[in-house]
Amino acid sequence: MLIAEIISVGTELLLGEITDSNAAFLARELAARGVVLHRKTVVGDNLPRLQEAIHTALSRADLVILGGGLGPTEDDLTREAIAAALNETPAEDPVLLAWLEGLYASRGRPMPGVNRKQAWLIPSAEALPNPNGTAPGWFARSSGKFIVALPGPPREMHRMWREQVLPRLPLPDHALHTTTIHTHGIGEGNVAELLGDLCLAANPSVATYARRTGVDVRVAASAPSEAEARTLAAPVLEQVRAKLVQWTWGENTDTLAGKLNQMLNGRTLGVIEAGSAGTLCTLLADQPAFLDAAVTVDHRRLITLGLTPVTLRDLGLVSEQAARELAAGAREHLGADIGLAVVVQTTGEHAGQAYAAVDGDGSAHTVAVNWVGDAAQARDRAAVAALALAYRATRLGGQNA
Amino acid sequence: MLIAEIISVGTELLLGEITDSNAAFLARELAARGVVLHRKTVVGDNLPRLQEAIHTALSRADLVILGGGLGPTEDDLTREAIAAALNETPAEDPVLLAWLEGLYASRGRPMPGVNRKQAWLIPSAEALPNPNGTAPGWFARSSGKFIVALPGPPREMHRMWREQVLPRLPLPDHALHTTTIHTHGIGEGNVAELLGDLCLAANPSVATYARRTGVDVRVAASAPSEAEARTLAAPVLEQVRAKLVQWTWGENTDTLAGKLNQMLNGRTLGVIEAGSAGTLCTLLADQPAFLDAAVTVDHRRLITLGLTPVTLRDLGLVSEQAARELAAGAREHLGADIGLAVVVQTTGEHAGQAYAAVDGDGSAHTVAVNWVGDAAQARDRAAVAALALAYRATRLGGQNA
Repeated sequence: MLIAEIISVGTELLLGEITDSNAAFLARELAARGVVLHRKTVVGDNLPRLQEAIHTALSRADLVILGGGLGPTEDDLTREAIAAALNETPAEDPVLLAWLEGLYASRGRPMPGVNRKQAWLIPSAEALPNPNGTAPGWFARSSGKFIVALPGPPREMHRMWREQVLPRLPLPDHALHTTTIHTHGIGEGNVAELLGDLCLAANPSVATYARRTGVDVRVAASAPSEAEARTLAAPVLEQVRAKLVQWTWGENTDTLAGKLNQMLNGRTLGVIEAGSAGTLCTLLADQPAFLDAAVTVDHRRLITLGLTPVTLRDLGLVSEQAARELAAGAREHLGADIGLAVVVQTTGEHAGQAYAAVDGDGSAHTVAVNWVGDAAQARDRAAVAALALAYRATRLGGQNA
Repeated sequence: MLIAEIISVGTELLLGEITDSNAAFLARELAARGVVLHRKTVVGDNLPRLQEAIHTALSRADLVILGGGLGPTEDDLTREAIAAALNETPAEDPVLLAWLEGLYASRGRPMPGVNRKQAWLIPSAEALPNPNGTAPGWFARSSGKFIVALPGPPREMHRMWREQVLPRLPLPDHALHTTTIHTHGIGEGNVAELLGDLCLAANPSVATYARRTGVDVRVAASAPSEAEARTLAAPVLEQVRAKLVQWTWGENTDTLAGKLNQMLNGRTLGVIEAGSAGTLCTLLADQPAFLDAAVTVDHRRLITLGLTPVTLRDLGLVSEQAARELAAGAREHLGADIGLAVVVQTTGEHAGQAYAAVDGDGSAHTVAVNWVGDAAQARDRAAVAALALAYRATRLGGQNA
């Protein structure tokens, strides 16, 4: 078993000015490859504390991954700290230096003197090329342990991790097979009740996660090979699928909008958003079925789009009937095959109340949403509920939802 | 000086399944109050490792803040680990237990037996009420040091931090005065060149940050009182403001859409988005000036909105002329005082190319954007550039931008 620790370097992380997305990326990468991550630590641009953190991590783990602190300035101390923790002295590597100078020459600029430290190496370390930046990484071996240093910018880090680090690591003879089932319209507690004892087993494990698009259920099995892991997961996966079929809209990399697009099968979708301010449109970006949308809370404009003045007067804009009329309007006035409308209350006593409606194939369906939260959350939940409604309605075809 | 460490608890954090936003929140809170954060650590739901992490943090810091692990299940080990690190034994607190049972009674449900551990206390700790959940926090004092345990859900944690923890902490006699200046249309490197030596001073400090809405410049001064910090910051702040005036759209909590709304001064805004899929609408949510939007890439529909077939044929949809015609169309066809249009290429060789145009007050202005990145980034940069263009144009009134 390979035990890992991650050390993220940078005072800006300790000031809360940026979120450490690299550590989450590395955590997922390690989990998927059977490497067990025991700790993540964030330290500032401080040589003694960084050196101590590396030293301590090396005493506990087989693999220590450092992110950040490889820039050219005085604040960038990762190289110095690794060298100190391993009791080695960095020296300029002529090959690295030539590469760095070439990089600047190709941009028609002289290399600033400060950048020379990016050409440093220590005897235990080899350099990891960085195709997207000026900071090479380090891959060091010491007493059977591994120390990896990668630059902080995610574009540089992700690629170097995959292309340079992974092939050098003695990864465990181990495969993790995971399937994530996406549901909508059922709460996490109810999912847990439905799954019952399935959630208690360790391998395959079944875990629930509340996401923006509903509750996800992840079934994970670990075995020496991918095929064995898949076989181990299969019976549990079938049980989970059967229990959740009624709420399930997809698996793994599926998106709700993508699944809706697939169900629409060439038919076009017209959208009216009143109160959700384009949130539904952003979810539908990239879907060929998405034809046209009107985004407005202006009453006169909504009336030209199909809302009846009587509904507006008697029931208000945030009503099931208004959503129904606007869904029909989205189909008729925007020239689409299927109309989808969402009306959301974002302020006042009834903030969070929303209705969505879908109209097409000779039938109409509606859903009510009441979400406690701020205006952005209310918009988001309503837009997701509208997509889920349209997915269910088109999956059912002409039947009643 | 108060030195702090944060320990975030949860195996899900080590699997990369969720990002640790609590730690960033706490980091900002500490920085703003002059507390120096030396380390953030993430450990899983593992008693020996959690206990060791608390023990080590206490040996280095005056204040140790734990987030998460206060739930009712066997995986929730923060209480046990603090007790072990302080060598104390937890016992059920009758007052806490009565409060917990009352909470369940008010929901008409019996309290599950597992929840009894949420009523635990140790002699060194007092309970921190949680108005938004079932997990009380702990505030422990030991050998002149402070250990705070807060639940993981941000809604619970943020409120308890502000209402319960801050009043109990011996915060340093210290105030930080910060002003953030928001710019758009100038790169971070150019801002740094303009500011020159101002960025080198420690107090007041001047730092640049590349944000979604442009480059932010933060001027921060630290002093014993707020008034002294403000006085210390003032001359530097004036210099920074003067150097950046041409690109500045706001300060501190200003939003670009809010500033545009203010400049519109009662006039209404009509929007056409072709390729940005509602992103501009979402930025304009909550602004009274935002009247109506059409979101589509459908050529026939765009022609009914003002795009001329000749422009479409000769220059294409993603062209300055198309943006200009659609901005006029947004004003005329959506019945608004000011029309704003954005056209974005999200695929193919020219992905990232975008144009925005604003039309109103008898004049029109355009801007071109070329952003290297994925489709979501291209949409986002284009939408922000459109807002910035509209802000500049309305600020200038009828003058040329």
